[in-house]
Amino acid sequence: MVNAAAKMLSEVKQQGRAVLTEVESKEVLKAYNIMVSAGYVATDPDAAAAIANRLTYPVVMKIVSPDISHKSDVGGVRVNLDSPEAVRSAFTDIMSKAKRQKPDAPIQGVLVDQMVTEGVELVIGATFSRQFGHAVMFGLGGIFVEAVSDVAFRLAPVTKEEALDMIKEIKGRSLLGALRGKPAVDVNAVADIIQKLSVLLIDHPEILEVDLNPVIASDSGAVVVDARMTLGEPKKVAETVYTSEEIVSSMKRIFAPAGIAVIGASGDPSKLGYSTVKNIIDGGYKGNVYPINPKAEEILGLKCYRSIKEIPDQVDAAVIVIPAKNVADAITALGEKGVAGAIVISSGFAEIGNTELQRDLVKRAIENRVRILGPNIFGIYYTPADLCATFCTPYTEKGPTALSCQSGGVGMAIIGYSRSQKMGVSAIVGVGNKCDVDEDDLIEFFGQDPNTRVIAMHVEDIKDGGAFVKAAEKITRQKPIIALKAGATASGERAAFSHTGALAGDDRIYSAAFKKAGVVRVSNLEELLDCARSLNKMPAPKGENVLIVTGAGGLGVLLADACSRHQLQLMTLEKDLDEAFRKFIPPFGATGNPVDITGGEPPETYEATIRLALEDDRIDALILGYWHTLVTPPMAFAETVIKAKQAAEAVKAKKPIVAALSGDVEVERAASLLEAHDVPAFPYSSERAVVVMSALYRWARIAGRVTP
Amino acid sequence: MVNAAAKMLSEVKQQGRAVLTEVESKEVLKAYNIMVSAGYVATDPDAAAAIANRLTYPVVMKIVSPDISHKSDVGGVRVNLDSPEAVRSAFTDIMSKAKRQKPDAPIQGVLVDQMVTEGVELVIGATFSRQFGHAVMFGLGGIFVEAVSDVAFRLAPVTKEEALDMIKEIKGRSLLGALRGKPAVDVNAVADIIQKLSVLLIDHPEILEVDLNPVIASDSGAVVVDARMTLGEPKKVAETVYTSEEIVSSMKRIFAPAGIAVIGASGDPSKLGYSTVKNIIDGGYKGNVYPINPKAEEILGLKCYRSIKEIPDQVDAAVIVIPAKNVADAITALGEKGVAGAIVISSGFAEIGNTELQRDLVKRAIENRVRILGPNIFGIYYTPADLCATFCTPYTEKGPTALSCQSGGVGMAIIGYSRSQKMGVSAIVGVGNKCDVDEDDLIEFFGQDPNTRVIAMHVEDIKDGGAFVKAAEKITRQKPIIALKAGATASGERAAFSHTGALAGDDRIYSAAFKKAGVVRVSNLEELLDCARSLNKMPAPKGENVLIVTGAGGLGVLLADACSRHQLQLMTLEKDLDEAFRKFIPPFGATGNPVDITGGEPPETYEATIRLALEDDRIDALILGYWHTLVTPPMAFAETVIKAKQAAEAVKAKKPIVAALSGDVEVERAASLLEAHDVPAFPYSSERAVVVMSALYRWARIAGRVTP
Repeated sequence: MVNAAAKMLSEVKQQGRAVLTEVESKEVLKAYNIMVSAGYVATDPDAAAAIANRLTYPVVMKIVSPDISHKSDVGGVRVNLDSPEAVRSAFTDIMSKAKRQKPDAPIQGVLVDQMVTEGVELVIGATFSRQFGHAVMFGLGGIFVEAVSDVAFRLAPVTKEEALDMIKEIKGRSLLGALRGKPAVDVNAVADIIQKLSVLLIDHPEILEVDLNPVIASDSGAVVVDARMTLGEPKKVAETVYTSEEIVSSMKRIFAPAGIAVIGASGDPSKLGYSTVKNIIDGGYKGNVYPINPKAEEILGLKCYRSIKEIPDQVDAAVIVIPAKNVADAITALGEKGVAGAIVISSGFAEIGNTELQRDLVKRAIENRVRILGPNIFGIYYTPADLCATFCTPYTEKGPTALSCQSGGVGMAIIGYSRSQKMGVSAIVGVGNKCDVDEDDLIEFFGQDPNTRVIAMHVEDIKDGGAFVKAAEKITRQKPIIALKAGATASGERAAFSHTGALAGDDRIYSAAFKKAGVVRVSNLEELLDCARSLNKMPAPKGENVLIVTGAGGLGVLLADACSRHQLQLMTLEKDLDEAFRKFIPPFGATGNPVDITGGEPPETYEATIRLALEDDRIDALILGYWHTLVTPPMAFAETVIKAKQAAEAVKAKKPIVAALSGDVEVERAASLLEAHDVPAFPYSSERAVVVMSALYRWARIAGRVTP
Repeated sequence: MVNAAAKMLSEVKQQGRAVLTEVESKEVLKAYNIMVSAGYVATDPDAAAAIANRLTYPVVMKIVSPDISHKSDVGGVRVNLDSPEAVRSAFTDIMSKAKRQKPDAPIQGVLVDQMVTEGVELVIGATFSRQFGHAVMFGLGGIFVEAVSDVAFRLAPVTKEEALDMIKEIKGRSLLGALRGKPAVDVNAVADIIQKLSVLLIDHPEILEVDLNPVIASDSGAVVVDARMTLGEPKKVAETVYTSEEIVSSMKRIFAPAGIAVIGASGDPSKLGYSTVKNIIDGGYKGNVYPINPKAEEILGLKCYRSIKEIPDQVDAAVIVIPAKNVADAITALGEKGVAGAIVISSGFAEIGNTELQRDLVKRAIENRVRILGPNIFGIYYTPADLCATFCTPYTEKGPTALSCQSGGVGMAIIGYSRSQKMGVSAIVGVGNKCDVDEDDLIEFFGQDPNTRVIAMHVEDIKDGGAFVKAAEKITRQKPIIALKAGATASGERAAFSHTGALAGDDRIYSAAFKKAGVVRVSNLEELLDCARSLNKMPAPKGENVLIVTGAGGLGVLLADACSRHQLQLMTLEKDLDEAFRKFIPPFGATGNPVDITGGEPPETYEATIRLALEDDRIDALILGYWHTLVTPPMAFAETVIKAKQAAEAVKAKKPIVAALSGDVEVERAASLLEAHDVPAFPYSSERAVVVMSALYRWARIAGRVTP
């Protein structure tokens, strides 16, 4: 059967055509056991009527021509024909219209097909992109897809489970349930088509675009009523030349080198070659630093070498801060010395249009097996090695978050925010033009890095989607990856021959890739940074039961609003638990969820309720709302939370806790204290605490820690 | 004609019924010139067939009974009947099913009506709430409304213009345009029904709920095909007993009193009666302060009085910090003394279930013409009078934003954020239990207050929606009102007899009220605070042309993403303007929008491009993206922006400017400097700057300053 598809596709290609007719498309689908509506092609009115008589009236008729893919546009479709006479007259009408509007189109006849009317109109499709290969789409068809673009995308291959998940994702999913007296649609049959289509695309990647529109689904199954396919060359980006092991081995040497050279080191404090050496020293790096400068003897107290080959010891990494035109030769020299990688700070490459220079760099990197970070980056920070290989200022606050950014501008925000919030980081990496090392290499490295527990990435594009997904899905069950994809709202550049292609847009494809990879997507810089700092402090929750305990009733309501917006499930308290809370709070306080302990309460009330929440096994995560009062001033609150947390953790497993603080400026100090004890805390805010808890949950669901 | 509606409604009421049949509902609609599908009631099969013969087949038949409002549920609807035989048999079928399922229901017959098939299914409805009266709904009908709740609400009365706006608001609006060869729907006819329905509701407020479902609309008009109405008593909340002038006159005396008494003043530093007096003194209040305490001679150096009546001078306002049970008598004493209002800090009223005590308070307030703020509040700040009448700490940073909050917890966040951000405020007001003074009183006062240019409110509920809308819509053209409505996601308590009522929920009704009032709604505390601080710094834009100028390309992309999410229109630069920018930036910099000046540029490039943006009349608003570099450090950037702004404002009208700053911690100081020069600035952020600009635009559109 599958051979029938290959045969049909090869015939079309031999005819030099890119677009399959409906009839041909359906033949291909049939070869993959996808149910299509039965129908036959007629070449004269009488044959059409004869076909119609064999089917059940009413029938539909559609022009068949390789040159006419938008059949309605030329008057090539007639529906609801209920007699042989109507069929005959429709045949003549369709043929004459087609000949008038497309005189040169070869016409193979008119397809006479049964009308499928009972069921829900769906659309299933596929589109191809260089970075990610095929993405498969599912949506409600007809007016729905046109009016509200209610569609879901996944990268191929799509498993049956993922297909069912796509169906659940659309907003109009209730239309597939039992409705208005009609039984529920057989979603398994629909998922089956999605899954089989994805197999077809893997077998035949030359099918660049597919529109199955409509697919009519009912309780008795799903059938493809119209279909179109486009062929072409599935040009994918070049895949990485390195194995996973090679990547990790190089990265380990680059991030924690025994010796590091600075090519273009300088004794002139106004030069980047000076600040880079100085930062490596000031950052506390314990390995050997080798400044390279043919004209200097000593720089910042370190012996200076004229070239890399003069260095007597092993060198693992080099920072490059020389003019762009000299960088490629330096890479070759590094290769000869056996250096694992270069951190190329130098700019003047693709970012200003010098693509040729950058291509040369890539060539030399591969030839010499030297990995390149950059060019055009601020450098890298890796705190476990006390390495600040950058022209910016040192940053040495150790912690388990690794951050990367494609833009230096965003990188400076990472450094500023980190310092301001005392965020503990394992690494901050600029990837810049990413001519070689990109996100998938970093994920391979941070994935296995015991110093890294959370990965946060600013991404403008992903070069090799396949490698990214492969690297990410290996580790997202262990470590959260948070991504901010910039350019989310830029208008897609995608060719939009197909309906599916038009609906795809880069952003939907990226979302599909992040889903496949298990990456938690955030929508702006502040979310990325808040999550980067907070997720490394909290354990994964064990279940979906979130509780709010608040001293400020008003803040509790706002936190509950935010939970609902961010898909956190405020648990319903069982009677005994509700009563247990009631014991600690004034009679006019509100239990339920939020638990409102009211504003006039002393630290003891916070302590008792927080301990109860942390020690009862039914509660999985805690959101605290604080109200600055004379009875419980900010620092007393912070100390109380810490005390309760420590007491609870002595007897029970850790739970994630976040806090929103309402009060005078002293709450900022209280927030810092809480942060230092692994409670992400946000002053003057009702949303941020919930956003980071929500990101934790999104990851925990991906990682299978909780079942949604 | 209109009398026919009154007659029909009164008949139904006389029969002691609350629900109108379809036939009755349509009679009422016809009286208001709303087109309904023609049809007649038959009482036997032959009559039904005779009616059908007079219409055009196919016809629809529906049971008519005051006791059966969900006709389909009892098998009371048959569609697509295409012959007299089918009609006769349907009649028998409908009657027998109805009698079997609802044996006691009085049946008036079966409605035989034409099938209206050509057109788009819509739903129009109305629901009533105590606070806001009637809200009218419009949405796409059928599966659409059921699957995605794609509906728009407005408070009655709804003008034709508002009705058209409702139609534009729904996501599926494209379904009303020309589609699939069908001409566009006559939206005027649809708007007409909405507007006329709203008139009917004003005339007959006893119609509590309406479902016109479906309304079928096509290019030739719109017709109501099924209709249902429910009657009841339109219980609205009590309206305010004060005129606008009385409100303003009292508020002026309360907020800027010539003399203020503190009832319950204390010399004991642990008491609220002490901190309240101390704060009034420390805040710099210049008027007379009269501590009242029968047991003290002097408090904090001020002569103490035993009671209010002992004070020889005029007293305009009093702060009350005595036990709840004594407050009502104090109000009476204030009335006798001619005091305008009481700021009741005391708690122990409705918030802990003492509703009786609070009702007494309201009674005394009205009897004595004393306005009450609170009870259960932290007090009020009014900086133009240097008044800190609160038990919290003083806050004296003057500026044009007035804030109010229903929750003390949120109030403390306002004070902390204000102090942290040096937000200039005219007032911070707790409304607490708002037994008397509420948001509409405050809007009346701040609306006319020359010291207030922006009003920001945290609202948990609105007592008197009519007064709120009336007060707000008077001033939103002049001053923005920003509102955070808490409890936005709480499940509605609304009775859901009608489809419309079920879809309404409190939140949609509040949104409709805010729209009517011209209030800009925000969704969390940080947005409320950011907008409160920023909107008072910026002039209204003159048009929709927003430009991003950025030193960090990556930040520029994130800002553009945010603009698209927040409905800001990134203008397309005309050729001459694009070229003008190009002159200042490196050849590899990108113009277009964002204008990316690239990261290595000195202050002069920022200055030149910012001046160009501010001085070219085609650009209406400016969003700046800054990247911390050695060439242009943070403070240099801030100074450059200020210089360019001042130079431009010397020759051109002011424009709104916001800035997003990416850099090391020094950007925090740069942000403060920019803020001090009326440029809202946000470090480590890609969204907040855009959010406040977007809020400014939302207001400017409401105020008619720009045309969307």
